[in-house]
Amino acid sequence: MERRVFNFNPGPATLPLPVLEQAQAELLNYQNTGMSVMEMSHRSKDFEEIVFTTEALFKEISGVGDDYRVLFLQGGASQQFALIPLNFLSADKTAAYAITGNFAKKAYEEATKLGKIHVAVNTADNKYKEIPRQEDLDIPADAAYLHITTNNTVYGTQWHYIPETNGVPLVADMSSDILSRPWDYQKFDLAYAGAQKNLGPSGVVVVLISKKMLEKVPETLPAIFNYYNLAKKNSLYNTPPTFGIYMLQLVLKWIKAQGGLEAMAKHNEEKAALVYEVIDRYDFYQGYAHKASRSFMNITFRLPTEELEQKFIQEAAAVGLVGLKGYRTVGGIRASVYNAMSRQGCEKLASFMEDFVKKHG
Amino acid sequence: MERRVFNFNPGPATLPLPVLEQAQAELLNYQNTGMSVMEMSHRSKDFEEIVFTTEALFKEISGVGDDYRVLFLQGGASQQFALIPLNFLSADKTAAYAITGNFAKKAYEEATKLGKIHVAVNTADNKYKEIPRQEDLDIPADAAYLHITTNNTVYGTQWHYIPETNGVPLVADMSSDILSRPWDYQKFDLAYAGAQKNLGPSGVVVVLISKKMLEKVPETLPAIFNYYNLAKKNSLYNTPPTFGIYMLQLVLKWIKAQGGLEAMAKHNEEKAALVYEVIDRYDFYQGYAHKASRSFMNITFRLPTEELEQKFIQEAAAVGLVGLKGYRTVGGIRASVYNAMSRQGCEKLASFMEDFVKKHG
Repeated sequence: MERRVFNFNPGPATLPLPVLEQAQAELLNYQNTGMSVMEMSHRSKDFEEIVFTTEALFKEISGVGDDYRVLFLQGGASQQFALIPLNFLSADKTAAYAITGNFAKKAYEEATKLGKIHVAVNTADNKYKEIPRQEDLDIPADAAYLHITTNNTVYGTQWHYIPETNGVPLVADMSSDILSRPWDYQKFDLAYAGAQKNLGPSGVVVVLISKKMLEKVPETLPAIFNYYNLAKKNSLYNTPPTFGIYMLQLVLKWIKAQGGLEAMAKHNEEKAALVYEVIDRYDFYQGYAHKASRSFMNITFRLPTEELEQKFIQEAAAVGLVGLKGYRTVGGIRASVYNAMSRQGCEKLASFMEDFVKKHG
Repeated sequence: MERRVFNFNPGPATLPLPVLEQAQAELLNYQNTGMSVMEMSHRSKDFEEIVFTTEALFKEISGVGDDYRVLFLQGGASQQFALIPLNFLSADKTAAYAITGNFAKKAYEEATKLGKIHVAVNTADNKYKEIPRQEDLDIPADAAYLHITTNNTVYGTQWHYIPETNGVPLVADMSSDILSRPWDYQKFDLAYAGAQKNLGPSGVVVVLISKKMLEKVPETLPAIFNYYNLAKKNSLYNTPPTFGIYMLQLVLKWIKAQGGLEAMAKHNEEKAALVYEVIDRYDFYQGYAHKASRSFMNITFRLPTEELEQKFIQEAAAVGLVGLKGYRTVGGIRASVYNAMSRQGCEKLASFMEDFVKKHG
């Protein structure tokens, strides 16, 4: 191995080094099977063991009970945007969507092609700078579900509370903050996450779903889109993304070895604080998100000019801090600091930011 | 690396050793980027380069022209079973399906949930032992498309001709024999293949589609299911299975380095012949598929008793020949010998079969 950089990409994102090292070591011969995990039949005992262990580990770490299933499916969050209305939004119902960012809006738009949608809240007028409060949410009592996006990757905002829905099923896209903190996952009837931010490589999506929700799936649905079928077959209805699930298992083992979600939250809060502290100390840096809505996963900020932002990105890359360019609708800088970003990476970024303001401020 | 076995699994299946070795070598640092290819943004220049190169390579190897696109999507063939009727079967039309095996039947069943389906042929009565002839196919002149499955993994049969459809668009599941021989791919309006047999790891599906077909996609379709949208965005509408596409690119480079499809066909025919020759030489072995329909990818045969079959599988595994158990509806033995199975593997299997019949026959 040569030089590794600190990778602040928003997803696919940096992975824990020990996970990559283990994958590398056994890439040609998984646990003395004489083949790569990529070459194993998904119907083999060895691979079934991986799937069952991964589901059990996810349940253990997230703290959900036996009334939940955890599925490992192909695709990412964008596919769930379509599957959720297909499974749970019947023609006589309306689903509520909280539009709090880029992906929340995409989820909403995809759903409008499949059924009647009610906007529970839309923070676009405020440029998605803050998470709505409970009292901002308009949730029809008979809604099929409320859909929220717990962390907004593009804008750097994060829900720090779980909304009360008064019995309306709560569905969440947690792609960019799943397993980053202890949370009452059992308040969610369905939570999903593309793996490529906090859990593994792209191409696999985790779906945490209550058994109560599974009972609602209409039988007429194509088998490949049908959560009930996919759960009954233990994520093995069709050939799953086997290597992705294996990587996900390694990441879950790594999270557990770090001390689980309490330790993850401490790690994430402390390292994000290193960067936010520099932003708040210098007027040179302007945080994008309102303080109370700040994300511990994606840190967004602007510099005085676009030229300086460009220079920031270039000079950072030159010292091994990469992937810092903000999303086009926000501009500026975005540092994505998911579970796998080390404290050392954030220290180096904070220190670079101090140097940069001294040099150019 | 320790011992590698000869892996006759039907898919996920064995991969070329040089491909795995390259992936292993650069797993922690892809081409001096300082990160794994799994950690790269799908919007980065480096990854876009991989996608564009992979599409160009696929077109070069398959010999299709500029009126085709090659997409690399999430999921596998099972998802295409649903996407094809969603994209191309309007309410006023009927689609024709040739039911020639297990996956052909699954494609048919999924389609019946989405539109009106006509059975062009069904070889179930003959236990799927042979591929239908042109004159067996009943293709309505106004069908939306004819769907065939070019190689039947479970039964070990393969289409050795491309059916004439008289203008009806031809759609094919080529999951288990894509790029295994030179073929006139331009006779197909859409050909798709889960990567995990001839092209790479599971979790990525290749869709070869004519631009003419893309024009037929209805705008109302959810974006994630919409081939037109997916093609327009160059397989980057959402986060694609980046590592799978990278592996697929390495496999395509390997195919090209071997001499392309002419060389692949020679390699595949010769090595399958080694095994078929033993089957035909001894009454002890009974080939499942009719000779004229035999597959060069999956070799299916029975032994005199199930006990002997069990013993065969065990003794073969003991000498490093694994994944030989037949599918439950056929029983017996299945040797899957895709592109990446070496001649040496088939030689060893043929030699083992000779020894086995001498010992137990």
